[in-house]
Amino acid sequence: MTYCVAMNLADGLVFVSDSRTNAGVDHIATFRKLYVFGVPGERLIVLQTAGNLATSQSVVNLLRQRLNGDCPHLYNVTTLFDAARLVGQTIREMSEHDSRQDGGVDMSCSFLLGGQIKGQEPGLFNLYPQGNFIAATPDTPYFQIGESKYGKPILDRALTFHSPLDEALRCALISFDSTIRSNLSVGMPLDLLVYRADSLEVPKGYRVEEGDAYFEGVRGQWGEGLRELLGQLPETPDDYRK
Amino acid sequence: MTYCVAMNLADGLVFVSDSRTNAGVDHIATFRKLYVFGVPGERLIVLQTAGNLATSQSVVNLLRQRLNGDCPHLYNVTTLFDAARLVGQTIREMSEHDSRQDGGVDMSCSFLLGGQIKGQEPGLFNLYPQGNFIAATPDTPYFQIGESKYGKPILDRALTFHSPLDEALRCALISFDSTIRSNLSVGMPLDLLVYRADSLEVPKGYRVEEGDAYFEGVRGQWGEGLRELLGQLPETPDDYRK
Repeated sequence: MTYCVAMNLADGLVFVSDSRTNAGVDHIATFRKLYVFGVPGERLIVLQTAGNLATSQSVVNLLRQRLNGDCPHLYNVTTLFDAARLVGQTIREMSEHDSRQDGGVDMSCSFLLGGQIKGQEPGLFNLYPQGNFIAATPDTPYFQIGESKYGKPILDRALTFHSPLDEALRCALISFDSTIRSNLSVGMPLDLLVYRADSLEVPKGYRVEEGDAYFEGVRGQWGEGLRELLGQLPETPDDYRK
Repeated sequence: MTYCVAMNLADGLVFVSDSRTNAGVDHIATFRKLYVFGVPGERLIVLQTAGNLATSQSVVNLLRQRLNGDCPHLYNVTTLFDAARLVGQTIREMSEHDSRQDGGVDMSCSFLLGGQIKGQEPGLFNLYPQGNFIAATPDTPYFQIGESKYGKPILDRALTFHSPLDEALRCALISFDSTIRSNLSVGMPLDLLVYRADSLEVPKGYRVEEGDAYFEGVRGQWGEGLRELLGQLPETPDDYRK
């Protein structure tokens, strides 16, 4: 499996992806699932992928190969909506290509696409394996793909459209910590990228490796804090134990 | 769906079940999923169920109907292991009976079985739809069935075999709060039962209704505490946001 989170907030965008892929427990590897397409000062488009790695890599490679052609590509589409349609079409193209010989294997994949094009608002889309998609809104400012359940409660409790970027990033890191502790198919390192709205920069992003001092500190502090919090809850009423 | 947790700890047993059943979003109902078979001073056997409600109810009814017969039943088996085998056989009996006309519907169900019989240690078993089962140990002192992922991180972080019963119960309640917030198919009221090891009592158990003052207080305090904890985490390093 995989776990990716993306957020579209008042202050900008936050993306975090794990990097574990597995086909059975004895075929585990590390692959980057966060891809950046950017033209500084003009556009940033970030993709995250989950699902069949062969399909998602092929989709990204097709998108990259076509950047120099005349057809619509990620550097010449004029809106993020059109970028999402283009990625959706490419997902369909790969699905049709591969489905003729799938032999019962699930070849599907999901994408998150977020970014900003000059003159427009930042945006975030969740693309389904069928190539259709939905957009994040202030009511629902985040999307997850992959192994999403373990890390959802903390996002539902703590994240809002108006969360500051750094707090949102910490919230995402906690969401990953919870997931990694409870599920072997999601693993380090993590790739993360934070984009300030309207900066039109193309951030380098950061890879959080196993043993990263900050992340380890946060994991320890969070686990300790949770246990303290649990200890501070009042005793259950006697009725609860009769 | 459903969510049930059971724990076998040094001090005793804790069981918590939700009560929501759904067949599609427009067919939601409340059904108890925690069943008690007990002879005060001699034995306590608690069952929790997830999966197809028709199957699990039938299994429980068969087990109850047979309590007065001559064949092995839950009041005359001499070990908890034999109780788990009996429930497993009854699950198989129902599966074979129903599978002839399943019409593609998933008729399977899972059970948790925990309790104590006089002269023996308390025990806890997780029974699969096939009727086979595993037992909890001090290494893995809890089992979940149903919609288990949302509420697993807090158990993995905070629960150990030596957690006091009341703390374990609070941990289970938080696990349910996280699940209920993130998943519509798990809902109030909650049925809970706490058993002190070697007491050989048959506790009445308790139903936590929507709006229960203690549970609402704990939910509020926990949510507030988590947000504070998140706020106390140190800012991410500059590298994380480049």
